Amino acid sequence: MIAQFSIVPLGVGVSVSEYVAKAVKIVDESGLPYRLHAMGTIVEGDWDEIMELIKKCKDAVLKETERIIIDIKIDDRKGHSGRIEGKVLSVERKIGKEIRK
Amino acid sequence: MIAQFSIVPLGVGVSVSEYVAKAVKIVDESGLPYRLHAMGTIVEGDWDEIMELIKKCKDAVLKETERIIIDIKIDDRKGHSGRIEGKVLSVERKIGKEIRK
Amino acid sequence: MIAQFSIVPLGVGVSVSEYVAKAVKIVDESGLPYRLHAMGTIVEGDWDEIMELIKKCKDAVLKETERIIIDIKIDDRKGHSGRIEGKVLSVERKIGKEIRK
Amino acid sequence: MIAQFSIVPLGVGVSVSEYVAKAVKIVDESGLPYRLHAMGTIVEGDWDEIMELIKKCKDAVLKETERIIIDIKIDDRKGHSGRIEGKVLSVERKIGKEIRK
Repeated sequence: MIAQFSIVPLGVGVSVSEYVAKAVKIVDESGLPYRLHAMGTIVEGDWDEIMELIKKCKDAVLKETERIIIDIKIDDRKGHSGRIEGKVLSVERKIGKEIRK
Repeated sequence: MIAQFSIVPLGVGVSVSEYVAKAVKIVDESGLPYRLHAMGTIVEGDWDEIMELIKKCKDAVLKETERIIIDIKIDDRKGHSGRIEGKVLSVERKIGKEIRK
Repeated sequence: MIAQFSIVPLGVGVSVSEYVAKAVKIVDESGLPYRLHAMGTIVEGDWDEIMELIKKCKDAVLKETERIIIDIKIDDRKGHSGRIEGKVLSVERKIGKEIRK
Repeated sequence: MIAQFSIVPLGVGVSVSEYVAKAVKIVDESGLPYRLHAMGTIVEGDWDEIMELIKKCKDAVLKETERIIIDIKIDDRKGHSGRIEGKVLSVERKIGKEIRK
């Protein structure tokens, strides 16, 4: 399955990239395929791998803040993998051009 | 923490309440405090309890479908509980009337 | 269509119910059917009504904060209305008991 | 502001990339800066531009389906632009390496 998640800490001011960076480091070290974009991080793995990873990220951010909002969006399709790239390629093929820029 | 989640099965037609009902039954049997509304189910518990519960719901729906989209939104605030009711009451107090209808 | 939305202001501390209350007042005055729950507000109407409403709420909160995160989730099903209640009733019928508590 | 959105049609089977492609074409023709990733499309503009665009995409998909689920996530920060790239760069600077791959 693939999952996109984002963690927003409250009570730490307007800029939160410092906290996002802590979480992304943990994702980077996990070894799971992932991609960072402006609204979240997409990771591919099975349920337990991904939830264990997000829990680690959550714990790291909650060490320094009192409240967090987490968004997780999962797309689980049987028998499919390599979907962080694959889903975009599938749309590009239908449009007839490369649009990722 | 409290978490809202929804599971949408693809490939089973336009009406999906039969699948939602399967998931809600599992939530109901979990013993965790929860509330069902038109866009999802809100449950209160700790990370492991809630993620174990959502995993069970996911597995039940994936038994009968090939692909699902899951949305999870978490609000984790240290030292606070009873928040399924409490958050709404806090807003109502500020507005000065009961608005849940 | 029905839409659930939530607005989270950043840079105003850990408690944000004061800002949520401002938005909910605007929803209440709109005359559209709505329901407040612990993770957002659900409103029923057509696209323009709902987006105009959320824009008003956004503007009200952004007057006092520098940054906000908004989540909107829409369920648009042709020929269906009364769905804030109707979707929950449909699940309850399948489960065989009232579960809203 | 930047907004991520995704449109999921129900009742059209398991594969929905054909419908996503229709929406992405509309985004591509809008002239707004955007980026497609595996879980949605991120676009930058003001509220009216973005909501008008998503409405067009919604209408195009609803022409061929009976029901859709739309997710929109907005990050609105006063006085900031170029954020589709900027937010990722800000995290990369804090981590000390390029992680987009």
